[in-house]
Amino acid sequence: MPVTRHIPESTIRRISHYLRALEILESQEATTVSSEELAQRGGTTAAQVRKDLSHFGSFGKRGLGYSVAELADRLRDILGLKCRWRVVLVGAGRIGSALFEYPYFVQRGYDCVAVLDSDPEKIGMSWGPVRIRPVEELELVISSLKGDIVILAVPPEAAQDLADRAVEAGVRAILNFAPVQLRVPAEVHVTYVNLVLELEALSFAITQAGSRT
Amino acid sequence: MPVTRHIPESTIRRISHYLRALEILESQEATTVSSEELAQRGGTTAAQVRKDLSHFGSFGKRGLGYSVAELADRLRDILGLKCRWRVVLVGAGRIGSALFEYPYFVQRGYDCVAVLDSDPEKIGMSWGPVRIRPVEELELVISSLKGDIVILAVPPEAAQDLADRAVEAGVRAILNFAPVQLRVPAEVHVTYVNLVLELEALSFAITQAGSRT
Repeated sequence: MPVTRHIPESTIRRISHYLRALEILESQEATTVSSEELAQRGGTTAAQVRKDLSHFGSFGKRGLGYSVAELADRLRDILGLKCRWRVVLVGAGRIGSALFEYPYFVQRGYDCVAVLDSDPEKIGMSWGPVRIRPVEELELVISSLKGDIVILAVPPEAAQDLADRAVEAGVRAILNFAPVQLRVPAEVHVTYVNLVLELEALSFAITQAGSRT
Repeated sequence: MPVTRHIPESTIRRISHYLRALEILESQEATTVSSEELAQRGGTTAAQVRKDLSHFGSFGKRGLGYSVAELADRLRDILGLKCRWRVVLVGAGRIGSALFEYPYFVQRGYDCVAVLDSDPEKIGMSWGPVRIRPVEELELVISSLKGDIVILAVPPEAAQDLADRAVEAGVRAILNFAPVQLRVPAEVHVTYVNLVLELEALSFAITQAGSRT
């Protein structure tokens, strides 16, 4: 089934939440779920659930709700969670190692095929079956190991250059932990995990709350 | 100056980006900046920059742009970055320790006053000046050390209960790394760093890109 283009990012995030809710329902052996119940678990409204799902075709039966197993399966499909992705991790620091050991990572089809770092003390070390390689080998690693995704867990000043090199080597998806906006061509998708932004949003909220009392 | 309420979260995120841009300009000893230049560095338009800033009062002079130092100072004020926040970190795993050592954390006024964990092997260990305490002491720690913010770097199944206990003990801001939506009273602010969502947004984007070629 062809998928509509230009799905808003907020929709994709809610789809992730719906899938999480469905997986909890699966573990509880529930067979059907209403849009109201999905809405409650996803922190939104039933109308929003129906609108979000309508981007991807027609689901559920009026008055009967959705089949938990079928909808979960379809959402995994939509989110690309049935594929396996070959990940090249740049940066073997604390964030990098936390990611590398994150159980969800492998469960969801992310295979870390290479780890690179610039620190001579780290290069040559083994993380499980993966040996840490010098960051100079980025292009070689991407082409020889057919990397789909590059994860940048590096200092902000190093991120843009590494992103440029990864894009040049053919990577079309970057997950960036460095607190800096990357300039990339339109066809490259960058996702940010920016702790600085989250902390600033939080201190903004507390400041506002404080000035209210 | 009173601050307008209900500022959209997307505005706050752009304010963070503008501040990052201004701090780079400060380090380059620039004295003024146009809304066009700020827009470029923040990945938006000049009109959006002016609209975002207008939430907080009047800045800059027509035709002369903004004073870099003054605007940076004002944005730090808006984002609550001139205060010091007392952080209670729950979870002394890899994410917790990465956070604890994150230099930005202290620079921006976040003081980690306590670390708690449920693992008997970790309890009693020292991280710098901070000794890891049993998670049972959460309420005691929040009240005796006057915690402003609780950071949850714990497994998803533990997060809601810890959030309830933190809220009960008077905390009004939670930074949640557990991949689960928290149910909290309206006056409590929760910020999420949800790696699961980011990875799913990324695999969605690559799947879509792949189906296009």
